Amino acid sequence: MAWSEVGNTVCPIARSLVVIGDRWTILTLRELFLGVKRFDEFQTQTGMSSHLLSTRLKRLEADGVIERRTYSERPTRYEYCLTSKGLDFYPLLLSLKSWGETWGNFKLEDEPALIIRHRQCGHKTGLKLVCPSCDESFGPKDATITFGEDFRMERQARRNGE
Amino acid sequence: MAWSEVGNTVCPIARSLVVIGDRWTILTLRELFLGVKRFDEFQTQTGMSSHLLSTRLKRLEADGVIERRTYSERPTRYEYCLTSKGLDFYPLLLSLKSWGETWGNFKLEDEPALIIRHRQCGHKTGLKLVCPSCDESFGPKDATITFGEDFRMERQARRNGE
Repeated sequence: MAWSEVGNTVCPIARSLVVIGDRWTILTLRELFLGVKRFDEFQTQTGMSSHLLSTRLKRLEADGVIERRTYSERPTRYEYCLTSKGLDFYPLLLSLKSWGETWGNFKLEDEPALIIRHRQCGHKTGLKLVCPSCDESFGPKDATITFGEDFRMERQARRNGE
Repeated sequence: MAWSEVGNTVCPIARSLVVIGDRWTILTLRELFLGVKRFDEFQTQTGMSSHLLSTRLKRLEADGVIERRTYSERPTRYEYCLTSKGLDFYPLLLSLKSWGETWGNFKLEDEPALIIRHRQCGHKTGLKLVCPSCDESFGPKDATITFGEDFRMERQARRNGE
């Protein structure tokens, strides 16, 4: 299957991946969440080529994840910031941060590279998932997954080679 | 910067991306979380070529994210399952699901493709982030980010072209 066909599904995970399922795009999102706005700084911090970065930014803009604003008229210079749609990737970035802190081969004595602090309570914060219904923590073993009918049929059709 | 150099950083997000920052890999993880274990079914449901899937599975196994087990001796057949390290990608998958449900151009009347139910309380569950310190919900605007000293120096060195 070509990647362009992957979004042709009722699966919300695949539809998200069509927008940001590219490591360079996610690195660019990291920079946006860190407050970086300008092309040169994205390039410096991600090590992307100018062409690579430019295509990623255009795509993110076309998908409504970022907005481009002019900050200088002569010469024309742009800066980029996250839209609401882009800010909604925050849990994704937190989950990558959390996984990397646990499994990224850090030493116990290493200080965290990124410290996130909750404004309201003042403490360091991070990823904690709770069930929206009962507010208890949960993980994959505390949950069952069932398929909606459309997705079940889509998966069956793939098995049938349709 | 070549992708192989991207993990050469103290940033936990980049270190995670080195392991799973590939859309095909994440689609494969989706299947593993849905309970799929066998090569053919991964291939059917992701549309990956045999070669593409095989390299992704080998890489995930080498990185300790999945385990391969023999389920048939003659002919030799393997199945794959998530290790603890792999199960820790659960929040990542939930966050992709949640983003896709909000922004993936679904119609209001569409039923969800994946229904996750919390065993303990019996209700439908999903992504809700709370601060581990105060248990209040939070998002990007409720938090400040600061850099650890090593990451700050790493970023400064990039700006200096070191």
